[in-house]
Amino acid sequence: MDRGYHSALEMHGLHKGKMEIVSTVPLENAADLSLAYSPGVAEPCLEIAKDRKTVFDYTIKGNLVAVVTDGTAVLGLGDIGPEAALPVMEGKALLLKRFADVDAFPICLGTKDVKEIIQTVKSISPTFGGINLEDISAPRCFEIERRLREECDIPVFHDDQHGTAIVVAAGLINAFKLIEKDLSNAKIVVNGAGAAGIAIVKHLTTLGCRHIILCDSKGTIHKNRTHGMNPVKLEMAHITNPFGVTGSLSDALYDADVFIGVSVANLLTEAMIQSMSDSPVLFALANPIPEIMPNLAKQFGAFIIATGRSDYPNQVNNVLAFPGIFRGALDVRARDINEEMKMAATYAIASLIDEKDLNADYIIPDPFDDRVVNAVAQAVAEAAIKTGTASLSAMPVG
Amino acid sequence: MDRGYHSALEMHGLHKGKMEIVSTVPLENAADLSLAYSPGVAEPCLEIAKDRKTVFDYTIKGNLVAVVTDGTAVLGLGDIGPEAALPVMEGKALLLKRFADVDAFPICLGTKDVKEIIQTVKSISPTFGGINLEDISAPRCFEIERRLREECDIPVFHDDQHGTAIVVAAGLINAFKLIEKDLSNAKIVVNGAGAAGIAIVKHLTTLGCRHIILCDSKGTIHKNRTHGMNPVKLEMAHITNPFGVTGSLSDALYDADVFIGVSVANLLTEAMIQSMSDSPVLFALANPIPEIMPNLAKQFGAFIIATGRSDYPNQVNNVLAFPGIFRGALDVRARDINEEMKMAATYAIASLIDEKDLNADYIIPDPFDDRVVNAVAQAVAEAAIKTGTASLSAMPVG
Repeated sequence: MDRGYHSALEMHGLHKGKMEIVSTVPLENAADLSLAYSPGVAEPCLEIAKDRKTVFDYTIKGNLVAVVTDGTAVLGLGDIGPEAALPVMEGKALLLKRFADVDAFPICLGTKDVKEIIQTVKSISPTFGGINLEDISAPRCFEIERRLREECDIPVFHDDQHGTAIVVAAGLINAFKLIEKDLSNAKIVVNGAGAAGIAIVKHLTTLGCRHIILCDSKGTIHKNRTHGMNPVKLEMAHITNPFGVTGSLSDALYDADVFIGVSVANLLTEAMIQSMSDSPVLFALANPIPEIMPNLAKQFGAFIIATGRSDYPNQVNNVLAFPGIFRGALDVRARDINEEMKMAATYAIASLIDEKDLNADYIIPDPFDDRVVNAVAQAVAEAAIKTGTASLSAMPVG
Repeated sequence: MDRGYHSALEMHGLHKGKMEIVSTVPLENAADLSLAYSPGVAEPCLEIAKDRKTVFDYTIKGNLVAVVTDGTAVLGLGDIGPEAALPVMEGKALLLKRFADVDAFPICLGTKDVKEIIQTVKSISPTFGGINLEDISAPRCFEIERRLREECDIPVFHDDQHGTAIVVAAGLINAFKLIEKDLSNAKIVVNGAGAAGIAIVKHLTTLGCRHIILCDSKGTIHKNRTHGMNPVKLEMAHITNPFGVTGSLSDALYDADVFIGVSVANLLTEAMIQSMSDSPVLFALANPIPEIMPNLAKQFGAFIIATGRSDYPNQVNNVLAFPGIFRGALDVRARDINEEMKMAATYAIASLIDEKDLNADYIIPDPFDDRVVNAVAQAVAEAAIKTGTASLSAMPVG
């Protein structure tokens, strides 16, 4: 672990950031330059001008993702601005390279205006093969993603929403194999109605879950609630909470099979867990301190607990999802990352754990399991082809 | 020269483009990730949130330039669109890395709207330490550059304008040492009123040249001309052509000491050159075919001829200017690239040729002369400090 620096700060200062843009072609002499630049470069330019699709053959576009933020919801730090968000975006871009050989570049926006963000990302999209939105605060992130998916001809993916939802759903599928209950009838309480919470509710609904209750800091979200609502919560009120449960998180948790927290540290109590159904499954994803620590949760009766932490079993880490998702989408030149592709990623992650290996401490693959990225990419590419959003009809060979 | 491919097209297809984004830090295991990404990355984020200036210490910003185009004036190919412009922008970005160790990234914009371009570039500017505008058609490029220079806190430089002007001026300074005339009184005809032509006129005016005539395809530009004008040409009409010469390029060239063409192939005739003053100096910069070929020019009486071509002496190649200019500006965190910095670059390039080596075939240094970038960077950094646009008061050591 000792790499010659004593802190993350020192490491970031050593090379001033973490990335470099390098050539993949020789640039040693005038002959090299005449191929890579003027006059030779006119050849690919003219080819692309004649047939725009060939931009994928002669440029970096087809393997390039923009990691875009406005710095409004960075890690657990909140609205720290675009400059302060840059270390995270550099890191995220490098994860795409490390796990899926996708080149990725950070774009930190000096505007929080939804229309300007949409226009800016749309304007820069010709350079890229995909857009990963990151750390944009809710509910703004929903409109930004929806409109960019409509207006761009490349896939747009908000990882804080879908990456988390995909990994949670994969873990839940495996958890339910263990507890031998029916997921579609399970009572699931999601606490936190930000980007991740909303996406989890939508994704689990698509997965077939019919009994979800969404809570925020003001309690359960239901059709008759009028305070602290926004258009997305209103939409959620209509697809969740079929029995109209009112009150607090405690009220929601009574007899629940699953708790999924994307909220704040240490809010689950012994009483809450004991009021749940038998074999409770907990996803306590607040970072870095979960809604309840795993050892305490087990002590209070939890059968399975997953967190966002690498120092406990069952880490919900988006790196299980987004690298393979972009790899698969780029490989078939998908124009979108649709629900079917997200669901394919979910099942691909879940199915990497053999039934014989499955246990309460192993419902989610390890982030460094090197089977993950290929399995996800393959499943996502196939789903893209099947749903008609792919421009290529097969994964490239090799 | 044989690199295993038979054409520039094949070379561009081999790796799909020419660049890659790589990590400068290890990302092998969970411990590495916990420094480069969550949770360690929060340290530099918090530091930058506390003091925005430290973004230069902990991220790639301070060594990063965006190469931005809308694809409207690419090489000699015209308005071929953002996708077809991408090979050029990748190449340009790699030249910055190759010659000045500046990381640079291509941004090809899917809009030609001046306001949208300005807003987009301004929005993405927090990520970058500088903006290089490229291949944006005139006269739109003038307003875009002017407004971005006003609105961004990082340097904005339109290379098609200033890079060319700087190298031409450097060559002209040296040419006039050889012909032993006074540059300030020389009659200089600039043919072509696009981005490069306008910038050349302005830069030579700043250099002290008092007798310049600017021509476009309709002839000389003068105060009374009303057809085919635009706001920039109107501005030029007031600072050039002191004797109000009307008519064609031929009329302008009579008794001229210098011809500078940024126009079209093969338009200079024997008669035109013979009508010029003694020892005519020609910069025939149309690409790839100059306004007159060097051997023919010499035959018709030209004393010195420079072109844009690498296969003849005196190549006017912007690579002599922009890498060192950005290197110098970034090294002292300049907020602008101002006239003094451009002029410093001009004199730095000119002075690299010793008086004893100077001759008609060597008025401009070779693009691969590795003294160039440091000389330019040093001069530009000093000028930035002197004019108060630098945020650091000295070049970094080493």
